[in-house]
Order: sequence, then C-alpha cells, then structure tokens
Amino acid sequence: MASGRGIAATIGGEGASAGKEPRTARGRRTLRAILDAAAEEFGQKGFHEGSISGITRRAGVALGSFYTYFDSKDDVFRALVRDMSDQVREFVAPAMRDAASQISAEKAALSAFIRFAREHKEIYRIIDEAEFVDPESFRAHYATTADRIGKRLSAAAGRGEIRDDISEIHAWAIMGMNVFLGLRYSVWDEGVDPDEIAEAVGSLLAHGIAAKR
Amino acid sequence: MASGRGIAATIGGEGASAGKEPRTARGRRTLRAILDAAAEEFGQKGFHEGSISGITRRAGVALGSFYTYFDSKDDVFRALVRDMSDQVREFVAPAMRDAASQISAEKAALSAFIRFAREHKEIYRIIDEAEFVDPESFRAHYATTADRIGKRLSAAAGRGEIRDDISEIHAWAIMGMNVFLGLRYSVWDEGVDPDEIAEAVGSLLAHGIAAKR
Repeated sequence: MASGRGIAATIGGEGASAGKEPRTARGRRTLRAILDAAAEEFGQKGFHEGSISGITRRAGVALGSFYTYFDSKDDVFRALVRDMSDQVREFVAPAMRDAASQISAEKAALSAFIRFAREHKEIYRIIDEAEFVDPESFRAHYATTADRIGKRLSAAAGRGEIRDDISEIHAWAIMGMNVFLGLRYSVWDEGVDPDEIAEAVGSLLAHGIAAKR
Repeated sequence: MASGRGIAATIGGEGASAGKEPRTARGRRTLRAILDAAAEEFGQKGFHEGSISGITRRAGVALGSFYTYFDSKDDVFRALVRDMSDQVREFVAPAMRDAASQISAEKAALSAFIRFAREHKEIYRIIDEAEFVDPESFRAHYATTADRIGKRLSAAAGRGEIRDDISEIHAWAIMGMNVFLGLRYSVWDEGVDPDEIAEAVGSLLAHGIAAKR
C-alpha cells in the first residue's frame, strides 16, 4: 500500500471507503456482493494478479458500482481483510454463547473456526498476503483477535473459571493454536472431525498434557 | 515456482542446487555466505524485489560463484527456506537436551526459538512469503516441523512423561503457539523475557489453564 494512512481513516462504516458508505439496504447488498467477489478474486489469484474488473464480473455489478463504494484495489483489499476478521468473529461468537465454562467456550470457538475455515479457505491466503500487501491490516487482524481472546480469558478468570495468572501470552498461544489447526485441518486436509480437534485442545487447556502421576 | 519438481530433486546436499554441492571447506564457506546474504536480501526486499546481484554483493562474492552453487533465484530461495528450517532445528535441539522432563524440554524449545527469532527476524517474512513464492517449501517447512514435534511427544508419552492420547493435533497446536508467540514477542516487540513466555506456556502444557477447584 502506498501510504501510511490508518485503517480507520480510509475504510468507513460497513466496509466501504471513507465517505462511500452505503445508505440503503440495496447499497449494502451490492457492497456485500463486491466484498464476497473480492474474497474469491484475491483468494484465487492473489492481490497482484487480481483486478477490479475481475471483482465486478464475479459480483455481477457494473464497474461504476465498484467506485461507488471503493476508491481503489488497495482499498477493497484492506476492507476485505477487516471484513474477514469480522466474519470470523460473527461466526464464532454465537458458538461460544451457551458454553458451560470458558474451556467449553474455547473448544466451541475452535470447532466453529475450523468449520468456518473449511467454507472460506481463501481467508488464509488473503490474511497471509496482507503481511506483504498491507502490513497494517495484517497486524490489526491479529492484534484485534488476540485482544478479543485476552478479554474473554480475563473475564473468565474474574469468574473463577480459569487461572488468575492468565496474560496476553495465553491469548497469543490460543490464537496460534487455532490458526495452525485451521491451516492443517481446514485448508490442507479436512479428514478430521472438527469436534475431535476441539476435544483434544479443550483437554489440553483443561488439564495440560503432562501424565498424571 | 514454475515447476512441480520435488525439493529433493532440485536441492542437493548442503543446500546447493542438485549436482552443485560444494566439495571443499572453502566451497562450503562460500555457500554459507551466499545463503546468509540471501536471507538478508529476501528478508529486506522480499522475493520479487530481491536479486541475485543483491545477494552476491552482500556476500562479497562474484556472480559466477552464485552459479557455481545455484541454478536460479528460485533455487536459492527454495534452499534458503530449507536452510532456515534446519537452522531453527539446530539452534533449538541442544536447548532441549538436558531438560528434566518433556514439559521442560518444550519450555526450553520455545525460549530458544524466541531468542533465535529475535536474531533472525527475517525468518518470518521468508517462510511466510514461501506460501506464495514456493508453496511446496512452505508446506514442507511446517509439515516437517510438526512431524518433529509429534515424534518427540510420542517418545515422551512412551516414557510416561506425557499423556498417552497425544496426537498430531497436539503437535500442530504447539507449533502454532510457538510461531505466533515468536511473531508477537520477537518480530513485533522484544519487551518480554523469553523465559517468562516459556514459563507461561510450560505451565499451560503441564496443568492447563482451568482454575483448580
């Protein structure tokens, strides 16, 4: 990306470029179609080979509609990274809601994430390419995700469900486990039941892996 | 990379292209200097902006020396990914050797990896860029690393030090934790003592994070 402008300064509400937010339900549907098409385009071709015309063709909208909501290819990519972050959060959060404990909630979150990543394998390529195309978005994605995990761990520690010496280190450890388990068991190979993966990690979080003596 | 040739087919012994392995101590030193220079060049500029002439300039060797050991920029990049994998393993393995238990060994491995990554921050950019430049090397790096972790966990389970229901899932979980803790606490910010990070993860592996009731 050419500039050091902050995400907040260039992406307005609901994912469009600043000042280009949709004002109608129809506009929001068009914006959604453009973001979904951008996920396909960049997921399959990568940022450099991907094009605005490829996105509008996939979305079935006119080129002008793209510029109604975005200023540039850089801007739609940046919006897409934030959109994928939001989509993961919105898919995973309800799965945790009825969990009986924080450990159960973390299991449910991982199982939901594995299932999400199987349906949206392009998320890996897009987030990973952001490290090179838009480092600020890459960093924001992981910093925000770790912060969210850290906050729910702290709340659970406050309720006495998990240890009270929990820190940001644990949040990053859990995020790292989840990201790599998704790479292995969603993007590379879907042969293992997501609940089996979540069970193994839940047991690790509940008891550790040391042998009981 | 243009072809689907296997790593073993294009990279010979000691990191050079097949058939171009150094035969003398001096040759091995030159090859080492080229690989170190390639890590700097690709780490700073990325694969596409990086050049063979940039590598030879940094290494202080003639362009001809490059072609004594490598066929192309693709080949030196592929060799570099494997070399970084090997360097991590060689740096981390001795740290685990005298550990009193497998949990202590995993702590020592993480602490060593954090210290390695602080000295070689370019490893993240290089391995991550391999996902796009040379997917086969990217995959081999993580598959090999997870396999190594899985083998040492299995051996420890056999000795009764860790639970006997350990699987590949645990190996990927531990690798993911370590990779993301290195990103956060080596590449982004060195403010936390590696031993503190290892202590938190060692305690997670030993006991889990559930509150004791």
